[in-house]
Amino acid sequence: MKNTRKHRSAFHTIMVCLMMSMLVVSISGCDEDDEVADIVNAPAATDNVPKYIFFFIGDGMASPQVNLTQAALDDPHFRRVNGAITLGALSLDQFPVAGMATTHAENQYITGSAAAATALACGEKTTIGTISMNPAHTLPFKTIAEMAKEKGMKVGIVSSVSIDHATPACFYAHETSRGNYYEIASQMDDSGFDYFGGGYVKENAADIENQMDAAGYTRVSTLGGLRGVPVGQKCWATTDVYDGKALNYEIDRIGTSEISLAQFTQEGIRLLDNDDKGFFMMVEAGKVDWACHANDAVSATHDMVAFDDAIAIAVDFYNQHPDETLIVVTGDHECGGLTLGFAVTGYKNTFELLKYQKTSFKKFDYSAAADFDQALAIMTEKFGLGDTTLDPGLELTARDSIRLEDAYNRSMGGAPSPDPTDDFLKYGWYDPFTVTITHILNEKAGIAWTSYSHTGVPVPVYAMGAGADLFSGSYDNTDVAKKIMTAAELK
Amino acid sequence: MKNTRKHRSAFHTIMVCLMMSMLVVSISGCDEDDEVADIVNAPAATDNVPKYIFFFIGDGMASPQVNLTQAALDDPHFRRVNGAITLGALSLDQFPVAGMATTHAENQYITGSAAAATALACGEKTTIGTISMNPAHTLPFKTIAEMAKEKGMKVGIVSSVSIDHATPACFYAHETSRGNYYEIASQMDDSGFDYFGGGYVKENAADIENQMDAAGYTRVSTLGGLRGVPVGQKCWATTDVYDGKALNYEIDRIGTSEISLAQFTQEGIRLLDNDDKGFFMMVEAGKVDWACHANDAVSATHDMVAFDDAIAIAVDFYNQHPDETLIVVTGDHECGGLTLGFAVTGYKNTFELLKYQKTSFKKFDYSAAADFDQALAIMTEKFGLGDTTLDPGLELTARDSIRLEDAYNRSMGGAPSPDPTDDFLKYGWYDPFTVTITHILNEKAGIAWTSYSHTGVPVPVYAMGAGADLFSGSYDNTDVAKKIMTAAELK
Repeated sequence: MKNTRKHRSAFHTIMVCLMMSMLVVSISGCDEDDEVADIVNAPAATDNVPKYIFFFIGDGMASPQVNLTQAALDDPHFRRVNGAITLGALSLDQFPVAGMATTHAENQYITGSAAAATALACGEKTTIGTISMNPAHTLPFKTIAEMAKEKGMKVGIVSSVSIDHATPACFYAHETSRGNYYEIASQMDDSGFDYFGGGYVKENAADIENQMDAAGYTRVSTLGGLRGVPVGQKCWATTDVYDGKALNYEIDRIGTSEISLAQFTQEGIRLLDNDDKGFFMMVEAGKVDWACHANDAVSATHDMVAFDDAIAIAVDFYNQHPDETLIVVTGDHECGGLTLGFAVTGYKNTFELLKYQKTSFKKFDYSAAADFDQALAIMTEKFGLGDTTLDPGLELTARDSIRLEDAYNRSMGGAPSPDPTDDFLKYGWYDPFTVTITHILNEKAGIAWTSYSHTGVPVPVYAMGAGADLFSGSYDNTDVAKKIMTAAELK
Repeated sequence: MKNTRKHRSAFHTIMVCLMMSMLVVSISGCDEDDEVADIVNAPAATDNVPKYIFFFIGDGMASPQVNLTQAALDDPHFRRVNGAITLGALSLDQFPVAGMATTHAENQYITGSAAAATALACGEKTTIGTISMNPAHTLPFKTIAEMAKEKGMKVGIVSSVSIDHATPACFYAHETSRGNYYEIASQMDDSGFDYFGGGYVKENAADIENQMDAAGYTRVSTLGGLRGVPVGQKCWATTDVYDGKALNYEIDRIGTSEISLAQFTQEGIRLLDNDDKGFFMMVEAGKVDWACHANDAVSATHDMVAFDDAIAIAVDFYNQHPDETLIVVTGDHECGGLTLGFAVTGYKNTFELLKYQKTSFKKFDYSAAADFDQALAIMTEKFGLGDTTLDPGLELTARDSIRLEDAYNRSMGGAPSPDPTDDFLKYGWYDPFTVTITHILNEKAGIAWTSYSHTGVPVPVYAMGAGADLFSGSYDNTDVAKKIMTAAELK
């Protein structure tokens, strides 16, 4: 992650220099930051039809997830200068246009990833669990990726979760249920799309590989392999290490050779950018959602940074092709009911405590602990909790200790609370000891959760480039797809 | 409320007819709603300097509050048509431009109303509690209202809370502490502003009245009185019934003769719109915040509707002066950590249960109850809870009953929980029985809270009219004021 952070820092410096050099009028009373802000906030002055379209979808990403990322990460993302608060810089902050989209499904106010991705891919409402078909399951909806392909554009689909998962599936497949993983993945080769990148497939992998081989896709699973695929060659790129069939959480990937979401995006651009008719690429950060389901704010934040790093790659491309590129970024729904405040901490946040977490909830392993005390020691090593030499704010109160011991006993097979509702509120579907650890760390930092499911707050929409002006205002998630169709003359 | 709702319905019909009649191209494959949406989402095509500026501030209003209002209210705000979900129409939905603003104070991530209103009024960060002065309390910041006055515009300040409260204060006063109510109110006459409307003052009212009389302000406290003030006359309008010194919660005001926020806005337009130099009017919905502090979603939603009704008045004015009017709507911060989902209800919301609440938490009075059972009966009458003939979803579970009885005993002077943190999480600073009732009703509807304080999520910004394009994108709350200054050439 350090490398991408450094890359982004350098990129920011270049951007700022570029923008400063464009300034011809000195605005009295404004400092440099104001001037830059005025320029980047100016609406894109182009009516061009974009030739290059990037569609970034943060699964489980709404404003709380974006702003936690701005606020939570230590230098360079969060710092105090002379006691005054500043926020970290995200690629997202550079987007000149923003909007908000409601997310409800056809038959439920709180949506799921299939109905939400159908809306984002096709501009149509459907029922929970449906992959780009109508609610009655009698007709497929055409997706913007299919429209782009018909127009002669190259098409790439990238996701940090398995490529047969609901969000990527909704761009290339049509199924009555998101659970039909094999039927979904079988439609990859039928789509004729040019690039699939990210996670693997969940069912009958050998059969899917045979189908993809027969259709002429080059399969690779290392960064070196991916970089060696010749331009114009159809490609299915995965990694050789998985969490299930998804990429590892970013917090667990850092320092490994596993391909990052930014690298999948970068190589996608290389493979797709060889045609005078341009390309459409969808890039999903799928595990922000999974981390938020588990109420693990730190893992969600690291995956948000990985997502933002991928967006930075597209912004870089935009800067080379500003009149021909459209970048749209949105979420499919909020997840977890994340709030940047908590009753007990009131007006006080100590986001800096979050940096002591070194593992995702998923990879946290305390199986070597013989008893509660040993489990606590492993917790302290991996989450910082209890180590006041790191930060006095990590001290465990008597209440914390009781919660941890109850949860540990429950994880060890102890009886649940007499009231199943209380039990579910505390632990959801998760390992009681682990989720109690992330709850306590999150609450000490001054953030909290209300759910283990999605919620119904609207999602932010960010846009940059040709056609971006269409994305201002308040609208529905189906309008996001319709606006892309309009901007790119896909329909 | 029925009347304003009807007014708005008629207004919507007129708007839709107007917009439909403007359609010259039939867009194939789109239904009427799509066409209207395309028009209202089109960026305002004007570079005019606005002569009429409306600045609406929802205190404690972020996206969760806006979207709960869209989703929660029964017909016409929330309805199921053939099983498919639709959302209620708000005036806010008509705004063609949207943005998002971060809200942190100079010295704290989670802001307070004084620091936030200083940012929105002056474009400057300051410390918690400071009224339009620098963090060191050595210099006043000039407010956009003062700039407008200097430019020869008429100025009006309207709030549903007391007129010396932090948000309105930051537009006309400069004080080291928001708690200096008398010193703040004493600056009303000094400002020379033309119209103050809404709540009363908290300290030394007789003295403030004398000051205002001496400065030539007409004081009125009834709608008839307000309507009788001649155009051009300086005016301080309050109501004759208060909750403290604020207007009553909208849910308690409905059906009374008390002046509504929309009426204060309407009369403000009449009084201020008499000058070729135009006007600036700030209108605050101050009690959305108070209701959210108390975790009373229904009262917050009713006050959001009252706010939206006031915005509708400005939109009406905009339609008469589209090239000369700028309307900006934002919140100062989120409050309560409201989420539109809850662990126990998961993906299911039953917002329709909220309509059975008939009183604010503040006016809920169970003092006549001799025991817990009588208190429960009063609760059922006022909140619907327990009355399954109204809706089966209102049934009290065993867990609900235990929570209510514990809370009732605590309200009756019983000992708090052994752990003060548990006690605070359950009741905050509020009456235990009442806040437990709103928690249970809210949770049954599928919404939840994490705090009794503000939180740090960004606030949406909506803009319409001359200069509105400046408000797209993602920026800081200080930029909201700067953008108004730029659009209106105030600086």
